[in-house]
Amino acid sequence: MPTFEKHIFVCGNQRPAGHPRGCCDPLGEARLQKLLKQKLAARGLKGRVRANQAGCLDQCEHGPNIVVYPEAVWYGGVRKEDLDEIVESHIIGGHPVRRLMIADECLNAVACPHKPRKSVAS
Amino acid sequence: MPTFEKHIFVCGNQRPAGHPRGCCDPLGEARLQKLLKQKLAARGLKGRVRANQAGCLDQCEHGPNIVVYPEAVWYGGVRKEDLDEIVESHIIGGHPVRRLMIADECLNAVACPHKPRKSVAS
Repeated sequence: MPTFEKHIFVCGNQRPAGHPRGCCDPLGEARLQKLLKQKLAARGLKGRVRANQAGCLDQCEHGPNIVVYPEAVWYGGVRKEDLDEIVESHIIGGHPVRRLMIADECLNAVACPHKPRKSVAS
Repeated sequence: MPTFEKHIFVCGNQRPAGHPRGCCDPLGEARLQKLLKQKLAARGLKGRVRANQAGCLDQCEHGPNIVVYPEAVWYGGVRKEDLDEIVESHIIGGHPVRRLMIADECLNAVACPHKPRKSVAS
């Protein structure tokens, strides 16, 4: 079998509560990655599409973040309720979910309207 | 700034000593990823090329593993001594390091000559 048709990296970075950049996985439990993995398996995609745990993807203010390769589609603010749409529309259907994509002007930006993310306390 | 020009994932999976599949980071210290990150920064590539920590990439018998996206080039058996060549030849020069690439017939294979990896004790 060749390389994965799609290789999905789910950020599992954890920072202390109140950190100004925020983080993608405050509980450090990889719930999003585990759930996505289950959903892919349920659609018969195990071995062809991988939902991979990842360290910090460095888009913290937009998290929870997911990036899909090889097409390099970046999603931000992903909730577990969004995973079905990502799987069905993007992974199976080939149509990225535009409403969840990180805006071009925000991706890897030194500054953007979301950066730094305000802490819950501020 | 747009997406990373290259996004490199370095497997940091850790399994108990003697596990038949082996693992990429027995010490769990992410030395390979940290060193690669330093080397990229030294070449002025910070922000353009990211060396990312990753959970299990599922090519354990071939590890330590690295995958480079968007081109999906998979490297196996990577040692810290190999990182300069990967950076100079592949990341900067655009020529993947063939001697380190996981063979097509091994990548994601259910069985291959390396699978399962023999434990040190066997």
